[in-house]
Amino acid sequence: MQLLKDRIIQDGVGIGTEILKVDSFLNHQIDVELLDQIAQEFKRLFGDQNVNKILTIEASGIAIACITAMHFGNLPVVFAKKTSPNTMTDEFYGAEVKSFTKGTVSIARVAKKYLQKGDRVLIVDDFLAHGEAAFGMADLVRQAGGKVVGIGAVIEKQFQGGAKKLRKESYRVESLAVIKSIKDGNIEFL
Amino acid sequence: MQLLKDRIIQDGVGIGTEILKVDSFLNHQIDVELLDQIAQEFKRLFGDQNVNKILTIEASGIAIACITAMHFGNLPVVFAKKTSPNTMTDEFYGAEVKSFTKGTVSIARVAKKYLQKGDRVLIVDDFLAHGEAAFGMADLVRQAGGKVVGIGAVIEKQFQGGAKKLRKESYRVESLAVIKSIKDGNIEFL
Repeated sequence: MQLLKDRIIQDGVGIGTEILKVDSFLNHQIDVELLDQIAQEFKRLFGDQNVNKILTIEASGIAIACITAMHFGNLPVVFAKKTSPNTMTDEFYGAEVKSFTKGTVSIARVAKKYLQKGDRVLIVDDFLAHGEAAFGMADLVRQAGGKVVGIGAVIEKQFQGGAKKLRKESYRVESLAVIKSIKDGNIEFL
Repeated sequence: MQLLKDRIIQDGVGIGTEILKVDSFLNHQIDVELLDQIAQEFKRLFGDQNVNKILTIEASGIAIACITAMHFGNLPVVFAKKTSPNTMTDEFYGAEVKSFTKGTVSIARVAKKYLQKGDRVLIVDDFLAHGEAAFGMADLVRQAGGKVVGIGAVIEKQFQGGAKKLRKESYRVESLAVIKSIKDGNIEFL
């Protein structure tokens, strides 16, 4: 998606060899006009998959998921929670999600009533790196007896291998911008 | 906002005397069609305030802020972070936010470059309870030299006093549904 690549070139900041900061338009400040274009692209890619639910994980995925849901005819959005709030009294599905950058493991949770057998779920997120969050969300859908019909990532850091692992498990992955490498702050696209 | 009240009556769950669960449409599963109506209402209420930025706090506020921003002509959204991610290398404004329900204190952070002198900020959030999050966000705007032109809450728990305290400090607060009390699961509106 050229508009997104242009924006990453203009405003993205590469740090070391692992990190791409896009907090001026995606995960701290949010450009909703760009997200609207991103959502349209997800609709174009997955519009024929009879999606009935959009799943993401807090926090940055929520914006993408909601605007995508609007383009899919106002489908319900569910976001997995990384912490267990005191209002989460229902039974939930849980999946471990490792964060390589933070060096932590958290449990992604979705209350059982919000994922059902037969659901055709589109998973969306801001980044696809090692694939941990996507695998965790896919596991939540599997536990519920639903089907992941696609995984849409705004930015894939290809060199961290997540997309490859997901495709090996037969998931359909579509990334709107694929980063091949980050070196000394230089961002190289595929 | 009648549509919202009806939805709270239909799907909201009162727990004890303090907690209202609305996770079937607002903060776990999200009904984007309802959010679109909510955003329209914020536009109606604050549309004349020359807002140039929408501020919220992760996680549930993000969806509301983004859809509201679309109704305000695609204004930038900024969401305050509750944790300091490893990609947050810039200088930031910070404000303490106490959570009465969780019994914790966290620091809400916004990178300095995303709040500026002269900004006319609309703060939105899902809940207005004791007002801690709103006061914290207002403090971030004040530190930056901006002005809070309004605070929009989807649901106000009036009995927790936040709106009253904010209005005493001359903030304009608009809540789309005002809960007077929660008793034995019974939700009483103002």
